[in-house]
Amino acid sequence: MTQPRYTDLVNTLPSTVPFVGPEEQERSRGAPFRARLGANESLFGPSPAAVRAMQAEVLEIWKYGDPSSHELRHELATQMGARPENILVGEGIDGILGNLVRLLIGPGDAVVTSDGAYPTFNYHVAGFGGDLHKVTYVDDREDPAALFARAREVDAKLVYLANPDNPMGTWHSGAAIVAALDDLPDGCLLLLDEAYVEFAPDGTAAQISADDPRVIRMRTFSKAYGMAGARIGYAIGAVDLIRSFDKIRNHFGMNRVAQAGALAAVRDGAWLTHVQDQVAEARARITAIAAENGLSALPSATNFVAVDCGADGAFATRVLEELVARGVFVRKPAVTPQDRCIRISCGRPQDMDVLAEVLPEALAAARA
Amino acid sequence: MTQPRYTDLVNTLPSTVPFVGPEEQERSRGAPFRARLGANESLFGPSPAAVRAMQAEVLEIWKYGDPSSHELRHELATQMGARPENILVGEGIDGILGNLVRLLIGPGDAVVTSDGAYPTFNYHVAGFGGDLHKVTYVDDREDPAALFARAREVDAKLVYLANPDNPMGTWHSGAAIVAALDDLPDGCLLLLDEAYVEFAPDGTAAQISADDPRVIRMRTFSKAYGMAGARIGYAIGAVDLIRSFDKIRNHFGMNRVAQAGALAAVRDGAWLTHVQDQVAEARARITAIAAENGLSALPSATNFVAVDCGADGAFATRVLEELVARGVFVRKPAVTPQDRCIRISCGRPQDMDVLAEVLPEALAAARA
Repeated sequence: MTQPRYTDLVNTLPSTVPFVGPEEQERSRGAPFRARLGANESLFGPSPAAVRAMQAEVLEIWKYGDPSSHELRHELATQMGARPENILVGEGIDGILGNLVRLLIGPGDAVVTSDGAYPTFNYHVAGFGGDLHKVTYVDDREDPAALFARAREVDAKLVYLANPDNPMGTWHSGAAIVAALDDLPDGCLLLLDEAYVEFAPDGTAAQISADDPRVIRMRTFSKAYGMAGARIGYAIGAVDLIRSFDKIRNHFGMNRVAQAGALAAVRDGAWLTHVQDQVAEARARITAIAAENGLSALPSATNFVAVDCGADGAFATRVLEELVARGVFVRKPAVTPQDRCIRISCGRPQDMDVLAEVLPEALAAARA
Repeated sequence: MTQPRYTDLVNTLPSTVPFVGPEEQERSRGAPFRARLGANESLFGPSPAAVRAMQAEVLEIWKYGDPSSHELRHELATQMGARPENILVGEGIDGILGNLVRLLIGPGDAVVTSDGAYPTFNYHVAGFGGDLHKVTYVDDREDPAALFARAREVDAKLVYLANPDNPMGTWHSGAAIVAALDDLPDGCLLLLDEAYVEFAPDGTAAQISADDPRVIRMRTFSKAYGMAGARIGYAIGAVDLIRSFDKIRNHFGMNRVAQAGALAAVRDGAWLTHVQDQVAEARARITAIAAENGLSALPSATNFVAVDCGADGAFATRVLEELVARGVFVRKPAVTPQDRCIRISCGRPQDMDVLAEVLPEALAAARA
């Protein structure tokens, strides 16, 4: 008899490691990266107030975190115009969306996303046996109308939409999302991933009632708040849905330093503004560096920029590899035609200087 | 149509919150606890080296943690006499055992544990639809022979055994566990929870090869290492089993401050010895306080002591409630006859002083 006996579902899952981190790449190449621009982390860091709060909280780390994240949920509710019962704090969007998939999706259940959108969502859907249906991007943007139409066709229980989008950085107005909701079929929940919304133009965040049972929104402290390594994010949704996570979540799963940092971070609006300004400057700088090299950058509402390498996916992959070989960590879209691009995170001026230095060499090598 | 559409399994799960934290109790009673002795946290705190490492790492928190926990796995492998491929780092034992249950257990699969053992294990088994079979404690100890015999009867895929035990603090020698393994049925994995093993007498840790496919051991930084709020633990097991977690785990789920703290903590053997000494003193103090009040304390190989309140479970519950009402956070076993006890975590002298002050009043009130 095999030992141990996995579930039938687990036996069907691929045994390859789906996500290689930059540290693994550094170990492979035998040197650290000069510029870490591949994971859309915030090189501008967290609020100094959050840093102080986290360093102080380290002294309290012998205690489990508050499983209800009481204080943080209350603060977020105030900011979001919702009640604390509408807010779920969890281990980053990745952790929360894994639990959401677990709540809704079993073997054979239909789920809809865009081909080339967030792979971690697909990973969790596969991990619970869901059938993933994909619609294509249109003009490098996710297509809410097509997503919701497909959801109706396949009787989907869940549909994924990121606004702004990752990996392209494109976006829809919140009003367009709200209008499209009229065509979301009954019985289908929209997971609206707003990981990057703090970087987007006013009006990008969809004005949706926290109590609207059709939608769960997810946000994170990993991007604009500069706390990717803290693993903390939150969801906003109807009270019944938020409460249902209590059936399955790891109740004592939150790191208390992360909880303290998030609370301080969300209260420091000035730092958020500072980061938004720095990101806007870096987006312009990436766009300019691309143009100096004869490449075009896509408009972005995020803290990264998709740069069109001007040829096919194979060429863009070579550009990426040559950048990595020269110490610049970047990633790229996986699906045609978006895969003609590389995705470059916004960095500080010194990071952008490294990019400006290395990109011409990488392009020349890729063309050789 | 209901919105959203949960899985059939989720619809069967209870919607009550299974685990109330001490912060919630403090909010209910309107005052902080005077002594936090209910969750077996380490009031002696983490290694000062770990505190320094964590405070320094806060400055790097803009980066995701290394998904492979490379450096920590290598250090733990050295200490455990295993290879890094035998080690899985995860979000505390709670997180790892949730994923283990997910790997093995689907609706109707048989699982065996002791009646009154770790409720979070039961929670995860129920959460994946497993059928939980329970054997009784014998003389306040878990009973490996009975567990494995029941596993054979019900064709269990997974059996849970904590050594030392929580909530009673009792233990078996490692040699006894190894001998009992001969009767573990084929196709059944033993989850050996060693969360408290650092507090136990020499010889309590079972000498089991990391590559033994019959067993997965789990350890934590939440207890002896004083980092419960960091949410980091590890499993030791056969390479294939450890690798299988990569199919489902949240790869970027680790807090990087926790990773840095754990690495520093595991390298500070002197602090571990200090904590072990302090815990031994506190166990003796709890035993003495119990005796002064006419109660008997059970021998303990952990950082807590089960104190027999000398009557039935209802009386012990009243004692607990009177302690809580007086600002002493404790918990208690839930199942007869273990529920005649309250479970008191080891604390610093000042925490033990509070217990000594309050216990006579609590007993008097419970008897009134």
